[in-house]
Amino acid sequence: MASETEFVADILAGLPADPRLEVPAGDDAAVIRPPAGRRTVVTVDMLMEGTDFLLGPDCPPAAIGRKALAVSLSDLAAMGSRPEAAVVAVALPKRGGAELGRGIQAGLAELAAEHGVALAGGDTNTWDGPLVLSTTALGSVMPGEAWRRDGGRPGDLLVVSGSLGGSLLGRHLAVVPRCREAAAIAGRFDVHAAIDVSDGLALDIFRMMQASGTAAVLDLDAIPIHPDAVRMAAGPGDGRLPLDHALGDGEDFELVLALPADEARRLVAASGQAPLETPFTIIGEVTAGTGLYGRMATGERRPLTPRGYQHGLDDA
Amino acid sequence: MASETEFVADILAGLPADPRLEVPAGDDAAVIRPPAGRRTVVTVDMLMEGTDFLLGPDCPPAAIGRKALAVSLSDLAAMGSRPEAAVVAVALPKRGGAELGRGIQAGLAELAAEHGVALAGGDTNTWDGPLVLSTTALGSVMPGEAWRRDGGRPGDLLVVSGSLGGSLLGRHLAVVPRCREAAAIAGRFDVHAAIDVSDGLALDIFRMMQASGTAAVLDLDAIPIHPDAVRMAAGPGDGRLPLDHALGDGEDFELVLALPADEARRLVAASGQAPLETPFTIIGEVTAGTGLYGRMATGERRPLTPRGYQHGLDDA
Repeated sequence: MASETEFVADILAGLPADPRLEVPAGDDAAVIRPPAGRRTVVTVDMLMEGTDFLLGPDCPPAAIGRKALAVSLSDLAAMGSRPEAAVVAVALPKRGGAELGRGIQAGLAELAAEHGVALAGGDTNTWDGPLVLSTTALGSVMPGEAWRRDGGRPGDLLVVSGSLGGSLLGRHLAVVPRCREAAAIAGRFDVHAAIDVSDGLALDIFRMMQASGTAAVLDLDAIPIHPDAVRMAAGPGDGRLPLDHALGDGEDFELVLALPADEARRLVAASGQAPLETPFTIIGEVTAGTGLYGRMATGERRPLTPRGYQHGLDDA
Repeated sequence: MASETEFVADILAGLPADPRLEVPAGDDAAVIRPPAGRRTVVTVDMLMEGTDFLLGPDCPPAAIGRKALAVSLSDLAAMGSRPEAAVVAVALPKRGGAELGRGIQAGLAELAAEHGVALAGGDTNTWDGPLVLSTTALGSVMPGEAWRRDGGRPGDLLVVSGSLGGSLLGRHLAVVPRCREAAAIAGRFDVHAAIDVSDGLALDIFRMMQASGTAAVLDLDAIPIHPDAVRMAAGPGDGRLPLDHALGDGEDFELVLALPADEARRLVAASGQAPLETPFTIIGEVTAGTGLYGRMATGERRPLTPRGYQHGLDDA
């Protein structure tokens, strides 16, 4: 049995030095040199075993570490911000906790290196309970330039990165946060509003519309459907359409942006090639009013239920 | 049953506006205006039901919210930094989670208001598991002015705020982070090194000495013992001295500082009155070498075990 102190010393010894850290991990707190003239962006996410992942052969510890950081980096991307640093708190099960912790750290470190994120510290705990991970990511953005949820305006077009649905078949553990895409777009396109698809495309767009005081009409034939959504729909007993999976599955971690129509078209035209290799697709428009609507190729329009993942809460 | 969305909307509606927040809580991430010319200090802590607290009549939800933030603010104080903002992630048990969550939020908000901390966001989750809370606090400090653990030098005196031991009798749930004390000391006294007492006075001083490459000799008769340590030692079957409780109990969240001898004496003389009402006491000195020693009034010196709370971790 190793003590937490020795475990943490091992982790700290493996962290790369970073010029942004005036005081690195290992003290009571880290001290970061914030980039001059920029705002600080902060987001926190918690992942729990049994809810967000099931440990097993298909889900090694490194994948969990990677996902925990990826979810927070996706939030930074959805603000049009640049990732800078992260801190991680973990509750490890006592039994096997050291091996689990090392695997998680390897996954965190890998993704941090890919996106230039300084790992600035953490809090390691053990208990007789399931694995819980909490990741706080810090980013930076120019003053007044953050992409908010509430800036959508009637006439804006809605644009989405990549394709959607079926993330449970594996992509939910191999999240690619759209940080590079956000960096390629920020300051070059007039983004009015943004959100990342965590709980489900329809639900997350609905939230953006609620915040903006607007409605959205989605062109159902235009929604880019991931091959995993097609595979899931074809599975025995699924009984749903690939489009349903694309609209409601969630954990896609794609970006949804609202931009003026000409800017949206310019963005889509620029996508699919350097520096914006990921394809972007126009999937609908922002209108006056409230709610969410689907439009068929025939022009027929019907209300759309904002499906997606929601936690339930009991009172007393 | 309320959805997480409604619960979060209630919480967000109750958060006070703060001029430091360019984008407040409720978006994918918050955007903070960092104070000009200062570094960003960041720390994260996780508290788990059954390990850090036991829900019950003596431990209402508001006390848990308060403690979660207090522990992180104590880390900011131990860096000589000023608290600015915090984000909180929580895993609530599904049953009774809404009431629990509201209580936690009330405790968080109360302490945040006392210390001028902007609550900048969070992540609310529910599960069939125990309550888990993770708090990330952001502070600011002048460049090069953060109090590190590794700056202790032979000849420095060790100074502690308040008194120690017996925190389990209630103080561990009513943590008073020493932020005001840190603010009154920073820039006015030449602090070489600092740490807060979380796991135990002896263990935390040992850690500071390890980081500094030095040893410490503690004057055992000088250590300020809290009345709770005396009460615990007098309890049936305790069998320990009040001094043992002061050295090893932990969760005192007092500050230990290493300063040059004249600065330490000046600090102690200035304490106990505005703006530094909390008494500070000289409890020992930093020497060359390694390890931790206790010195009696007789001058006798013996090695001291760095007692305190340590998590255990099993391999595989």
